[in-house]
Amino acid sequence: MIANPLAEIRDAILQRQRFVITSHARPDGDAIGSQLAMAYALRELGKDVQIVDKDPPPPQFQSLPGIRDIQVSPTVHGQFDAAIVMECGDLSRTGVDGFDRYFVINIDHHPGNRNFGAINWFDPARAACGEMVFDVIEALGVTLTPDIATHVYVAVLTDTGGFHFSHITPRTFEICRRCTEAGAQPETIARAIYDNSTMGRLRLMGAVLHDLEFEGNGRAAFAALTLKLLQDTGATHEDSDGLINIPLSVKEIQAVAFFKEIEPEHFRISMRSKGDVDVNRVANVFGGGGHKNAAGCSLYGPYAEVRRRLVDELTRALV
Amino acid sequence: MIANPLAEIRDAILQRQRFVITSHARPDGDAIGSQLAMAYALRELGKDVQIVDKDPPPPQFQSLPGIRDIQVSPTVHGQFDAAIVMECGDLSRTGVDGFDRYFVINIDHHPGNRNFGAINWFDPARAACGEMVFDVIEALGVTLTPDIATHVYVAVLTDTGGFHFSHITPRTFEICRRCTEAGAQPETIARAIYDNSTMGRLRLMGAVLHDLEFEGNGRAAFAALTLKLLQDTGATHEDSDGLINIPLSVKEIQAVAFFKEIEPEHFRISMRSKGDVDVNRVANVFGGGGHKNAAGCSLYGPYAEVRRRLVDELTRALV
Repeated sequence: MIANPLAEIRDAILQRQRFVITSHARPDGDAIGSQLAMAYALRELGKDVQIVDKDPPPPQFQSLPGIRDIQVSPTVHGQFDAAIVMECGDLSRTGVDGFDRYFVINIDHHPGNRNFGAINWFDPARAACGEMVFDVIEALGVTLTPDIATHVYVAVLTDTGGFHFSHITPRTFEICRRCTEAGAQPETIARAIYDNSTMGRLRLMGAVLHDLEFEGNGRAAFAALTLKLLQDTGATHEDSDGLINIPLSVKEIQAVAFFKEIEPEHFRISMRSKGDVDVNRVANVFGGGGHKNAAGCSLYGPYAEVRRRLVDELTRALV
Repeated sequence: MIANPLAEIRDAILQRQRFVITSHARPDGDAIGSQLAMAYALRELGKDVQIVDKDPPPPQFQSLPGIRDIQVSPTVHGQFDAAIVMECGDLSRTGVDGFDRYFVINIDHHPGNRNFGAINWFDPARAACGEMVFDVIEALGVTLTPDIATHVYVAVLTDTGGFHFSHITPRTFEICRRCTEAGAQPETIARAIYDNSTMGRLRLMGAVLHDLEFEGNGRAAFAALTLKLLQDTGATHEDSDGLINIPLSVKEIQAVAFFKEIEPEHFRISMRSKGDVDVNRVANVFGGGGHKNAAGCSLYGPYAEVRRRLVDELTRALV
C-alpha cells in the first residue's frame, strides 16, 4: 500500500517522456473522457502520448476533440516509458495484449481492482475515473484547457448517468464547476452524447417496450432482442444500450432481464435489479456473474426454453 | 429598473413577517423546489409562511420534505405582508386569484416576464429559478439546512433536465456543490424524481414509440395519444409528460408533434423542434403559441383531418 498514490503518480509522470494510455474494451464515456483528458494534459507538459484501445469509441462521442487520435488495436507496440491504464480491474479488461511489458500506472474506481500496476491508485468512492484524472492533472500543475475540461466533464456526466447514480459528492460538483469555468460546455456536450440517437434505436425502443413481458406479479420485466427484431427495426446490438434501465424506472418493477440473441439459439442475458434483489446469484446459477444489481450470463437453446429457465430463477430472487 | 433587485428583495423580506409563496399552475420541479426552499429559509428567520398553488405537486415529488405543506386552492385568502411569486411571467400564470392584493415580489427566469411586482427580479440567463432562490437565501444570511439544500437541488436538477439544457454555468455547479455539502443527496433525489414511473407510463411509452408516424422524409414524427390508448394502457395524460422529447433525440428528426385527445374530436397538440424549425409559427396558424422550439395549439375534428392540417403546416416549417 502506497501512502500517497496520487503523489507517486505525479512524480512517475514528471520523470518520464513517452506514454501509452488505455482503458477497457467497449469503452464508455468515462473511459473515453479519462483517456483524452489525460492525453491532452500530458501533451501540455510536452510529453509524447499515444492512446491504444481494443474497440473504437461509440458513435455519440465522435464529435469530441481528439477522438480520432485513439488508435484501435488488439496489441500495443512501440517504446513507452509508462502505460497509464484506467477504468480496468485487471490488465485483461483492456482487451489489448502487451501492456505487461511497460511500467504500469493503474487508476481505477471499480470495486475489486487487482492492484496490477507498478503504481496503483484505486478509489471505489469516486463517481467517475474522470474525477481521479482531474486530481492527477491538478497535482501535475497543468492549467485546464477547454479540451481537457470537456473530457473530464464527459467522464463525470456519463459515469454518473447524468448525475443520477451513487458516489456524487461536493467534489464532483466542484470539478464540474472548474471544468465549466475552463470552457467545457455542458449543454453542447449533453446534446452531442444523449441527443444523437438513431432511428433504429427509436424503433427498437418502441418495439421492446411495447412487447415487454411481466412475471412475478409484475415485479420482473422480460424482453427478447431477437436477430429478427434487430433486422425489422434496422437497429444494432449497441442501439439497445441503456434500454434495460427504462422498465426499472417503474416503482413496482424490481428486476429486468434482456435476452439478446447473439446467434440462433445463443442468448446473452443482461439483468438489472433494485435494492436487495440479487441478480448476480441468478447469473451464477448459469455460469455468469457481475454485481448484485447488474449481472449477465449466456444460455443456449430455443427462446421459450431459455426464457423459462431464467424466469424460474429470477422470480425466486424477488423480495 | 431597480439597480440591485436582490438587495431590495432581501430588505423587503427582512422587514416583513407574514408571507404567501406561489408559482405557476401545474407546478414542475423548479416551481416546487423554489417554493419549498424559500419557505424553509424564511421559517429559519422566524417568519410565517404559507404556500398556495393552483394544482397539487406531481406524484414524483411526494417524498420530498414539506410537500404536504402546500395548500391547493384557486383563491388566496388571509393576511400577508408580501406574496413571493416565482417562475411566473405574469400573475395569471399562478392560476390563483387574489395575489394582486398583496405586496408582490416577482422572481423569475422566463423570457418575457411582465415585471408585475412591487419588486421584480428577472434574469433569463439563469438555468433555474432555484438558482435565484439560492442567491436570495445567501443574501438573507440563512445557513443552508438539508431541507433547503434538497429543494434548491431539486429545482436545478429538474429545470436543467438533468444538466442537459442551456444556461448551465459555473455558478450552477457551485450551487450544487454547496447544496450537496449541506446535505442534499443527489442520488436519492434523482431516484425519487426519475425512477418513480408508473406501469401505465411504461406501457404508454411503448405504445406511442411503437406507433410513431413520420412525415417530411423522416424529419418530423407524429403521435396520437387518443382516449382509447390511455384507457388501454391504464395511463393518464400526465404519464405522457416528457415522452415528446424521446423522438427528438434522433439526429435526423427535427420536429415532433403529439396529438392529445382531450375529449372526442378535440385535440391539444404539443410540438417540439430543434434549431431553426419554428413550431411557434405553426401553432400561431391555428391560434396557439409558445416559443420557437416548444409550442402548442388546439384543433377540432376527426383525427385524420386534424392530423392532415397540422402535418401540412409542420412539414412546411422543416428546414
